[in-house]
Amino acid sequence: MDAYKTLREEAWEANLEIPRRNLAIYTWGNVSAFDKDRGVFAIKPSGVAYDDLTPESMVVVDMDGAVAEGSLRPSSDTETHRILYRDFPGIGGVTHTHSTYAVAWAQARRPVPIFGTTHADHGAEAIPCTAMMDEESARNDYELETGLLIARTFREQGKDPALTPMVLAAGHGPFAWGQNASDSVYHAAVLEEICKMAALTLILNPQAEPLPEYIIMKHWERKHGVHAYYGQASPV
Amino acid sequence: MDAYKTLREEAWEANLEIPRRNLAIYTWGNVSAFDKDRGVFAIKPSGVAYDDLTPESMVVVDMDGAVAEGSLRPSSDTETHRILYRDFPGIGGVTHTHSTYAVAWAQARRPVPIFGTTHADHGAEAIPCTAMMDEESARNDYELETGLLIARTFREQGKDPALTPMVLAAGHGPFAWGQNASDSVYHAAVLEEICKMAALTLILNPQAEPLPEYIIMKHWERKHGVHAYYGQASPV
Amino acid sequence: MDAYKTLREEAWEANLEIPRRNLAIYTWGNVSAFDKDRGVFAIKPSGVAYDDLTPESMVVVDMDGAVAEGSLRPSSDTETHRILYRDFPGIGGVTHTHSTYAVAWAQARRPVPIFGTTHADHGAEAIPCTAMMDEESARNDYELETGLLIARTFREQGKDPALTPMVLAAGHGPFAWGQNASDSVYHAAVLEEICKMAALTLILNPQAEPLPEYIIMKHWERKHGVHAYYGQASPV
Amino acid sequence: MDAYKTLREEAWEANLEIPRRNLAIYTWGNVSAFDKDRGVFAIKPSGVAYDDLTPESMVVVDMDGAVAEGSLRPSSDTETHRILYRDFPGIGGVTHTHSTYAVAWAQARRPVPIFGTTHADHGAEAIPCTAMMDEESARNDYELETGLLIARTFREQGKDPALTPMVLAAGHGPFAWGQNASDSVYHAAVLEEICKMAALTLILNPQAEPLPEYIIMKHWERKHGVHAYYGQASPV
Repeated sequence: MDAYKTLREEAWEANLEIPRRNLAIYTWGNVSAFDKDRGVFAIKPSGVAYDDLTPESMVVVDMDGAVAEGSLRPSSDTETHRILYRDFPGIGGVTHTHSTYAVAWAQARRPVPIFGTTHADHGAEAIPCTAMMDEESARNDYELETGLLIARTFREQGKDPALTPMVLAAGHGPFAWGQNASDSVYHAAVLEEICKMAALTLILNPQAEPLPEYIIMKHWERKHGVHAYYGQASPV
Repeated sequence: MDAYKTLREEAWEANLEIPRRNLAIYTWGNVSAFDKDRGVFAIKPSGVAYDDLTPESMVVVDMDGAVAEGSLRPSSDTETHRILYRDFPGIGGVTHTHSTYAVAWAQARRPVPIFGTTHADHGAEAIPCTAMMDEESARNDYELETGLLIARTFREQGKDPALTPMVLAAGHGPFAWGQNASDSVYHAAVLEEICKMAALTLILNPQAEPLPEYIIMKHWERKHGVHAYYGQASPV
Repeated sequence: MDAYKTLREEAWEANLEIPRRNLAIYTWGNVSAFDKDRGVFAIKPSGVAYDDLTPESMVVVDMDGAVAEGSLRPSSDTETHRILYRDFPGIGGVTHTHSTYAVAWAQARRPVPIFGTTHADHGAEAIPCTAMMDEESARNDYELETGLLIARTFREQGKDPALTPMVLAAGHGPFAWGQNASDSVYHAAVLEEICKMAALTLILNPQAEPLPEYIIMKHWERKHGVHAYYGQASPV
Repeated sequence: MDAYKTLREEAWEANLEIPRRNLAIYTWGNVSAFDKDRGVFAIKPSGVAYDDLTPESMVVVDMDGAVAEGSLRPSSDTETHRILYRDFPGIGGVTHTHSTYAVAWAQARRPVPIFGTTHADHGAEAIPCTAMMDEESARNDYELETGLLIARTFREQGKDPALTPMVLAAGHGPFAWGQNASDSVYHAAVLEEICKMAALTLILNPQAEPLPEYIIMKHWERKHGVHAYYGQASPV
């Protein structure tokens, strides 16, 4: 089991962030780590408690959806992860959770407006919510169709997954992605916090307006633009 | 005290989940474990703090409501547990808590609509709320009548306790059940999370609609159907 | 310092429950323990962090408001405690906190309706909220007047402090009492939980109705009546 | 690195309070400590996790905005801190966080009314919310302009930063200050709690009224007036 050792370790460590950041109770969340060059990703096994996970228990899946390594059954959401890796070039990690506030927005079937700089620091647009999946798709191949629905939502709304690394699947919950597994779970935690802040904002002001575009761009570019000046030039 | 050792241990361990999962403060919750073959269940003693519980302190009660083993007084809710074991064949554990969001729904006297897949993964229907108990029943044998009221609610609404392992007793709080004690406290924790998500959903969208039936069935069958594919085929 | 050793220890232990039960941040809460026979109570010193408290740091105050023992300044709320001991015969402990949900109800200036059995288990009536203190009283002797206002509220509303061991001081926050210091902080924790449940109940159902009187009495008597059957006959 | 040792230690310790008091997730908050005599302040380095901070990693910045000591890049919010030290004479510490409820009020663009004594104990007025920054300022020097906007808000509303040690920057989040770094983070924690209490107050009573002025002054003077009697005359 040495071939995918680093990939499995990356996925394992990122999965442990789910309970640490209170993003799901029990086993209600999963993270995968993608190796683009080899065309495989390592993902949480289905239904196993976070405390019982080990790097060895991660399941390595290829881009046809076949298990390349591992003795356990992969997450039931594996096909959604696979489609996101296929359709969103450049991402290296995917996280799915049932975090409370993000699920509430997904159940309310509302996109999350960009009310403040906390949001703008991590995405330059409202967080989209997919349409409800149609009956034929749900009966067909539910998890694969979830991935296709997310990809179609971005395509139809002209959104760039690099600028908006998170989405709400209507009636279901959040998916987030990033440069690697750790980055994707970071975005899942950010999404939950943004969703909580936005819900409270609407309670305090049902007519709350989004940030002006010039503030959004300022904050986004502080962290992500060519002239970004947040953080250290090289890792500390 | 060896005859019911395993049963008492099962009940004791499940009771400890109540504070661990923040399902009640102080002593406001109780779990029991049922041994169908012997017709007895082990239940938390009344008013004893979770930290002070031991397997030996659990009280074994028979199906006539008599103490079969144990020196302490059983939970004041014992009669409700007994009726649920009697009227819901096949269940092996019962949990009652005063978890915050489930109590709020019970006090609002509203059933919890099935807004999302978190709910559908654990039950195929809205979570029912009983009617308020009438005066004669309350004066008669309150805890026994609570059990009868729950059983009647399921009967009148044509609900199957195996498909909906949880209920709200109006003006009181949640009861949950399952295959064993541990499964029942799992359902009590799930219920609390569903109730929180559903309350937030209604805040964000007072006209929120339930999931379409075809999504409900898909999720329920993922975990519970003949062709369930969530989790591992055998325990990890 | 041996004369009041037990009393100071009782007050000290109960004060430590405030941070443990998340009833206040920083130093925003205080508990006292009353010795009726000697006419003194031990109370938290003003502005001292809970972590720095010791039994020796508690301040013993007599029923004229004079310090009987202790080198520190007593809680700024001492006069409120003193009036409650004077006007509510039979109580042995008083707790004041700024717990979040109880403060919100006090700031909203609303009594807390008795929506469910969690409430009825601990009090047979709505939790009263005082009127806003008038200007002359506030300028006169603010903390003493707070005590008088609470006592007057109970008198005018015909409430018995033994049946309703808690109150909201309008625009300020909660006071609770009990048979001893530990019992008073228990009631302060119960009040916070009741206030959270009641707020959520109103969010879910703005027209939520109180429990019928026959259920209230049933629950109250389960725990407090002559034929109470909750808990163990003697301590475990 | 001995010249600013004490100042860096003060800043470091205060920054650690941010995660301890749950005022921000990840690196979303920063505290600085000001040495008025030398005209420098020590501030958190940008984007470094709290667990990785050391006194040595704090960055010392002078009143022209130049780094006086330290090898890391200072917080991206450094210019806001600098302007507050320049324009609010007498303050010795500044804290900026993205705490959840304070951000919600800032996103709702509402000042926080003074609903209760918890608020009055720490400020004698409503907590102001700035206007939204205009486009030219945002494009110019965003963080410096944030400081100028805060200072202008206080000037135009006739507010004294010593009486109101906290503000909401519209669409962004809270800034707080105090006599030193530790005092500023204390005010940031108080602000978050006040914002939570005020939001819940409005949920319970959308027409909630502010405290009468005579109660506000009474509470403010208990803690801050010439005849203050809260706390101990000298440190315990």
